[in-house]
Amino acid sequence: MTVSPFDHPLLSGLLGDEEAARHFSVEAEIAAMLGFEEALAAAEAGCGVIPRDAEAAIVKALASFRPDTAKLRTGVTKDGVVVPELVRQIKVAVGVPHDAYVHFGATSQDVIDTSLMLRLRQAIDHISLLLGENIVRLTGLELEFGSRELMAMTRMQPAIPVTARDRIVSWRAPLERHQERLKELSGRLMVVQFGGAAGTLEKLGDKAVAVRAALAAKLGLGDASQWHSQRDALAEFAGWLSLVTGSLGKFGQDVALMAQAGSVIKLSSGGGSSAMPHKQNPVKAEALVTLARFNAVQLSGMHQALVHEQERSGAAWTLEWLILPQMVVATAAALRLAAELAAQIESLGH
Amino acid sequence: MTVSPFDHPLLSGLLGDEEAARHFSVEAEIAAMLGFEEALAAAEAGCGVIPRDAEAAIVKALASFRPDTAKLRTGVTKDGVVVPELVRQIKVAVGVPHDAYVHFGATSQDVIDTSLMLRLRQAIDHISLLLGENIVRLTGLELEFGSRELMAMTRMQPAIPVTARDRIVSWRAPLERHQERLKELSGRLMVVQFGGAAGTLEKLGDKAVAVRAALAAKLGLGDASQWHSQRDALAEFAGWLSLVTGSLGKFGQDVALMAQAGSVIKLSSGGGSSAMPHKQNPVKAEALVTLARFNAVQLSGMHQALVHEQERSGAAWTLEWLILPQMVVATAAALRLAAELAAQIESLGH
Amino acid sequence: MTVSPFDHPLLSGLLGDEEAARHFSVEAEIAAMLGFEEALAAAEAGCGVIPRDAEAAIVKALASFRPDTAKLRTGVTKDGVVVPELVRQIKVAVGVPHDAYVHFGATSQDVIDTSLMLRLRQAIDHISLLLGENIVRLTGLELEFGSRELMAMTRMQPAIPVTARDRIVSWRAPLERHQERLKELSGRLMVVQFGGAAGTLEKLGDKAVAVRAALAAKLGLGDASQWHSQRDALAEFAGWLSLVTGSLGKFGQDVALMAQAGSVIKLSSGGGSSAMPHKQNPVKAEALVTLARFNAVQLSGMHQALVHEQERSGAAWTLEWLILPQMVVATAAALRLAAELAAQIESLGH
Amino acid sequence: MTVSPFDHPLLSGLLGDEEAARHFSVEAEIAAMLGFEEALAAAEAGCGVIPRDAEAAIVKALASFRPDTAKLRTGVTKDGVVVPELVRQIKVAVGVPHDAYVHFGATSQDVIDTSLMLRLRQAIDHISLLLGENIVRLTGLELEFGSRELMAMTRMQPAIPVTARDRIVSWRAPLERHQERLKELSGRLMVVQFGGAAGTLEKLGDKAVAVRAALAAKLGLGDASQWHSQRDALAEFAGWLSLVTGSLGKFGQDVALMAQAGSVIKLSSGGGSSAMPHKQNPVKAEALVTLARFNAVQLSGMHQALVHEQERSGAAWTLEWLILPQMVVATAAALRLAAELAAQIESLGH
Repeated sequence: MTVSPFDHPLLSGLLGDEEAARHFSVEAEIAAMLGFEEALAAAEAGCGVIPRDAEAAIVKALASFRPDTAKLRTGVTKDGVVVPELVRQIKVAVGVPHDAYVHFGATSQDVIDTSLMLRLRQAIDHISLLLGENIVRLTGLELEFGSRELMAMTRMQPAIPVTARDRIVSWRAPLERHQERLKELSGRLMVVQFGGAAGTLEKLGDKAVAVRAALAAKLGLGDASQWHSQRDALAEFAGWLSLVTGSLGKFGQDVALMAQAGSVIKLSSGGGSSAMPHKQNPVKAEALVTLARFNAVQLSGMHQALVHEQERSGAAWTLEWLILPQMVVATAAALRLAAELAAQIESLGH
Repeated sequence: MTVSPFDHPLLSGLLGDEEAARHFSVEAEIAAMLGFEEALAAAEAGCGVIPRDAEAAIVKALASFRPDTAKLRTGVTKDGVVVPELVRQIKVAVGVPHDAYVHFGATSQDVIDTSLMLRLRQAIDHISLLLGENIVRLTGLELEFGSRELMAMTRMQPAIPVTARDRIVSWRAPLERHQERLKELSGRLMVVQFGGAAGTLEKLGDKAVAVRAALAAKLGLGDASQWHSQRDALAEFAGWLSLVTGSLGKFGQDVALMAQAGSVIKLSSGGGSSAMPHKQNPVKAEALVTLARFNAVQLSGMHQALVHEQERSGAAWTLEWLILPQMVVATAAALRLAAELAAQIESLGH
Repeated sequence: MTVSPFDHPLLSGLLGDEEAARHFSVEAEIAAMLGFEEALAAAEAGCGVIPRDAEAAIVKALASFRPDTAKLRTGVTKDGVVVPELVRQIKVAVGVPHDAYVHFGATSQDVIDTSLMLRLRQAIDHISLLLGENIVRLTGLELEFGSRELMAMTRMQPAIPVTARDRIVSWRAPLERHQERLKELSGRLMVVQFGGAAGTLEKLGDKAVAVRAALAAKLGLGDASQWHSQRDALAEFAGWLSLVTGSLGKFGQDVALMAQAGSVIKLSSGGGSSAMPHKQNPVKAEALVTLARFNAVQLSGMHQALVHEQERSGAAWTLEWLILPQMVVATAAALRLAAELAAQIESLGH
Repeated sequence: MTVSPFDHPLLSGLLGDEEAARHFSVEAEIAAMLGFEEALAAAEAGCGVIPRDAEAAIVKALASFRPDTAKLRTGVTKDGVVVPELVRQIKVAVGVPHDAYVHFGATSQDVIDTSLMLRLRQAIDHISLLLGENIVRLTGLELEFGSRELMAMTRMQPAIPVTARDRIVSWRAPLERHQERLKELSGRLMVVQFGGAAGTLEKLGDKAVAVRAALAAKLGLGDASQWHSQRDALAEFAGWLSLVTGSLGKFGQDVALMAQAGSVIKLSSGGGSSAMPHKQNPVKAEALVTLARFNAVQLSGMHQALVHEQERSGAAWTLEWLILPQMVVATAAALRLAAELAAQIESLGH
């Protein structure tokens, strides 16, 4: 099924991004969850919490584990999360007596939130590359057309002549600040979630902190206290995504307005119409506006989800699932489209 | 790929709705678009705008038409809509000389918006049935538990005793008003979109109104002037969807609060935890809150899309695509979950 | 203080509307609340619930009642609502022995929600007049310029020539549908709220329904069961407000785009710039876009407030107060600006 | 008039914050704008752009300048901004021949955006103090009650016992991260806006950069290239405000849920009811949830305003005015309420 254009076989060609979306496939999700369970067994064995034999049995079983997805689906329907049923299946695969050490001391949220981080890390790498690519392309435009004259438009009216450079800089400078922001927030975001039933890692006793640190290290994430009910880093990241698409939306809007105005911009190709084959519609520019407004809408939901009641809110947590992956893909798509649009600009200014 | 939980093989078991989602599959979409083209050919032949032979050739070709979806995807990337490439493929299938009569006088937006209406009609039938089912179940709860005592809670504090009926009515009465609202808005919503390149059906001359009426009749939709840049009926419908999920979110929130408070409600089963197998989490109740807040967020985007510039806005129109299908499925899912939750209530009040 | 531009001594000249804002002044609010208490005393005396002498004493006291607003402010800080302190002051004014009959059987929410309805009714009358005025002015534009040629713009690109009438109709037709919608929703919206402590009017015994009907009749509102935790009519109304501003935002956006494009529209006057005195900025057109996007944002909050927990949610109810009055004033302001903008159009099309 | 509760004589006692709101009064706004003009004259005289005599005349005139606010209001109605009329009045006050040097090389946006920064700086100082105060109070609660037992609640159901410390930390830790974030973003936010008619400071020739640096220094702001169409720092700041209120909303929601559950928390006083004087409503806790949801809604609008077309968008810029001041005041109010609520907690845990 393809309710969202980001998943749509046809529309995702324009609005989606395969590389970003890949990290939100069920396969990637399960792989990351299994990676968590494996790293957890290793960390716990390393700290003497579970036997080395148990670790070996778990690692071996996970290597060939294939989940029964029909039962996982049923599990979600009942439990609201996939983990209880997934852990049950892993335990069966591991078998007696080591099954008791599977998922030891952990809870569903540890698996799901850490799995999200593992996949966000890859998606962010991709987005970061695309962001750099956009900066390069806009710099290229500046080198090529920067000294040409452009009529500045304020409040939709001609103001005074400026250079194409002035406008190109207004597209690029925010992207450079977004790079700076990403660095700042990454340290807060890219951390392990590990707290057990209620955040206290009560089953690990005085080994809790050591296990968490080892788990984080094995997964390549930062170590941090559990944040199961503190969702500020995710909301901050969502804000960053919307800042990026917002800046690109301004670029798209400007290009569309220039394309309407006529000769000030020349695009190498545009979209056709089923009624008017001669048209050259600035499709990518428009899509940038769409994705900017989409993310601006979604961001509100990620901030609503900050009101995360008590130790774990089913309602607020699930709201994040409905929103954040789409924001990530929208951002990657916007960056891809913006880079393509920059490449389509054959002439800018006079 | 499964960026949205509504499309997700596992999560859609809880958060999705197969019957509603079905109408947003690419198969359903293409079928509806082909249905439009067939009905258009028939309407135009009936009005003497195209030859009867052309109609026959088009109907015949469409009957066995299978699109090249890879090319459709590429077409979307370039044109921002699937229709130019789809029409091209249909024309090839029809062949010379009748291909000139395919999609005659129509434009992409006619096909896409009317196709949306054909599918919304079915989704609304489904939602309407679910809405009725919820009213029946809540009436059943009233009959069973209505006269029991319940402590009214105002501002999260005990107020005075009321009956369970009082609270059940507060869940059901809005649903009855939503039925009334749906009737009122349906006449405005369920209409054909047919305007041609810029809304004036300029290729149909004095037959324009007759063709449009015939097209609407063949498709079982209301006849109406083109509304390609007037999106108020869609935004109104989105508001209705969010009213429905909002009312169900109140039901879910109340059930979750009662479940937390303890003995005032008894649910037949709840979700388990990977760390605490004894738990009975009110998963469906929480999901109702999630879906209510999700739709409340999305609604903002459908209203942003009202600022639809000039005769057709690529940016605003595409924003609808990213939002409306998800709102429909969220609403169907909430109605399904609410009916299931009502059935889980084994005891209410004292 | 003037945190909101709607209250701002300077900015409200553009963005506000005095007549709509008037109904949200503290004076209007208190007057409506006193009106409620007076009508309640009359209704209850008429039904034999309180003595006629008590009614007379209450009516007399209210006629000269002036609240101590400093204490009301303190009361809000403590109670979250103004009513407990206001009722206390009224009781003092009425004096022993009739003070026991003040506010008899009612609760804060009855006073506040019914007072809101009394004021919304007047605001809606004003908005409705402005809406009619806009339709008249757009019809005037059609009569004057309708047959001129205009280049249709689809996806920000020239499509084919249409007439100015075609575009004017796309501005006016939604407004006519909004008139139809307002009629439909008014019956659900314009009703009394009267439920007592927890919605059951438990102090009025078998006279409850009769008192409520009499109260509604005296206030000129519809009679209806209490809706203290069912906020769908308010959310529906907020949606209507945003539909209106959204349609006007499209008008504003179109005018601004035409003004940018040059000769296709001529406005009689525009805004100046402190740097470029020659400029003629389409200020009112831009403000219409602003107000459309503002209301589209706010609407999300009114729908979040549908998740109104149990018999009364302090959190959700207060959220309405922060949002709905601003939406009403934004809508009135947009209608005023749109009518002024229509009057500024000296030429449209070629 | 008092359309917004933040401006409301009664409701602002609960929902507003006098110290934060003070910076958005028209008096503060005009004072900051005059401060800009004075600093500009000084900077330009210092760099040899305008005569020292002109600077002296401007400084002298500004010292006793009192605007004609009725004309300012009319100016806003026409120009969409107050600056053209304000500058006209200042020029009259300065008189011939020095009036030509008033506002030299600047434009409306320079004055308004820089004036906003001057006032945000003070509001942020206030908010920052309140944030620190909240951390202190939560630390106090931890010292007093941290070691008591608390039943962890996950998905609205009892999980396992934890300590009160665990929950208190979940309230405090995000606030500490918000302090870190504020430091990071302040450097990007607290900068001068100075660009002239279209951002190029074309009237200042090769003195442009020196004048801007001197202007920034005199105003105590950072120096930066003009950002008139790059609104990312403002949207980032709005996100920060909503992160703060979101975290406080979680605190409020938790307190309200504990208050409902009974003995786990004891608050020193609560709000009364006009129908049930015995009640102790957790009014401040509920208001925290309200303000969190309010800001989460508003944030969407600040991100919509990122799509700021060309060199200056009247529509997007004005949207910021309608939203940002309210977000600032909502945040200050939430911080004030949260500190008060923390002080009301007489007992937490068992």
